[in-house]
Amino acid sequence: MTNKIYIVGMGPGREELMTGEALGVLERADVIVGYTVYLQLLDERFRAKELLSTPMRQEEQRCRICFRESEKGKNVALICSGDAGVYGMASLMYEIGKEYPETELVVVPGITAACSGAAVLGAPINHDFCVISLSDLLTPWEKIEKRLRAAAEGDFVIVLYNPSSHKRKDYLMRACDILLAGIKEERVCGYVENIGREGTKTETCTLNELRNREVNMFTTVFIGNSESELIDGKLITKRGYYREEK
Amino acid sequence: MTNKIYIVGMGPGREELMTGEALGVLERADVIVGYTVYLQLLDERFRAKELLSTPMRQEEQRCRICFRESEKGKNVALICSGDAGVYGMASLMYEIGKEYPETELVVVPGITAACSGAAVLGAPINHDFCVISLSDLLTPWEKIEKRLRAAAEGDFVIVLYNPSSHKRKDYLMRACDILLAGIKEERVCGYVENIGREGTKTETCTLNELRNREVNMFTTVFIGNSESELIDGKLITKRGYYREEK
Repeated sequence: MTNKIYIVGMGPGREELMTGEALGVLERADVIVGYTVYLQLLDERFRAKELLSTPMRQEEQRCRICFRESEKGKNVALICSGDAGVYGMASLMYEIGKEYPETELVVVPGITAACSGAAVLGAPINHDFCVISLSDLLTPWEKIEKRLRAAAEGDFVIVLYNPSSHKRKDYLMRACDILLAGIKEERVCGYVENIGREGTKTETCTLNELRNREVNMFTTVFIGNSESELIDGKLITKRGYYREEK
Repeated sequence: MTNKIYIVGMGPGREELMTGEALGVLERADVIVGYTVYLQLLDERFRAKELLSTPMRQEEQRCRICFRESEKGKNVALICSGDAGVYGMASLMYEIGKEYPETELVVVPGITAACSGAAVLGAPINHDFCVISLSDLLTPWEKIEKRLRAAAEGDFVIVLYNPSSHKRKDYLMRACDILLAGIKEERVCGYVENIGREGTKTETCTLNELRNREVNMFTTVFIGNSESELIDGKLITKRGYYREEK
């Protein structure tokens, strides 16, 4: 007999942006585990279930709760914002799962902020792109700098997750300064706050302007590639460099 | 009065992996436009509607059909596989949309193959990653090579879309050879064929082995970063480089 734990990407937050598969898993779950903020975004029918959470930074404890509840015979769903496998809990669950060989993990994908944010801004990641988190909580800053330089060098569209926090107010500025060494000041950029929730806010600007913008931890930032442009206020990256034959 | 055209990401194909928002748009649509293969994946209730398609490579015509039908007063949905804004039709719609200033475009995000494929393989993109298409139909090969080199240089997890086609049988080999200049032969990789459809197939291997694998155009390839590892057959990239305090 194998226990299964479902690691579920809930997308940006609105239930309409969850997949049917994710909703089905939550409907069948006995216990829903997650960071408090995300549990609060769930519909009442899910919040009526047993909900278990740990504060931010106690992700390992949160994972262990899942395995413990599953061992009791409960049907467990662990929710993550966006996609469970993009800066989410999926990899930590697999690491801890080594201690629980009889438990099978099932990852249920969700809409990550690169995609939901892009949809609001227009079509900024319609060609090759990089996703980089500016959080140095679990990654040395030198590694982040190296990736920013490589992304500029490769002329990728760049999507920045976690561009700021209370303790890291100047990180977006630092990232822009690194990018500005290889990318022109007037490169088109955009950012979205609170994607798919109350108070969604979008802005477009140049890379130089982005440097001085204040963003928060619920913001996703998009830096266009050399071919990106603004069309009627939307941030657009072409599918390719040639036009098809008519 | 403004017409709206919805550009809808249908995810990998199974209806369960579409969002409620995407399904709602299709339910309200009078006409569904898309590449024939994707129209065929839709449920009967949607296929009973007016369906319009153009062959592959006639994407511009497909977009123009949307605007023309919309001008007739019809409610139009354009479907794309995965996410409509990741190598999808969103940016081309905005470009052509310049000629139709009274039409508003709405992008409805979907689960892109980087996320749906990752969920099947384990958690390969759980840290910074790049998405690169190996198709040189609309992009010069030199640009693709440059991006592969930059992605290796930045120690990104790399996701390859369109790794092969009838005319480009050796492209994955060529890409691996470029990556092998900067990445060790034993780097862990994985690939998924027909994600979320009949006949899903997953494999893991080293970068050197990947070089000689035959993949098709429905395959998505994942190349781990320097910290990626196989855990019980799953391809896992850690969320970070430090462990949290217990």
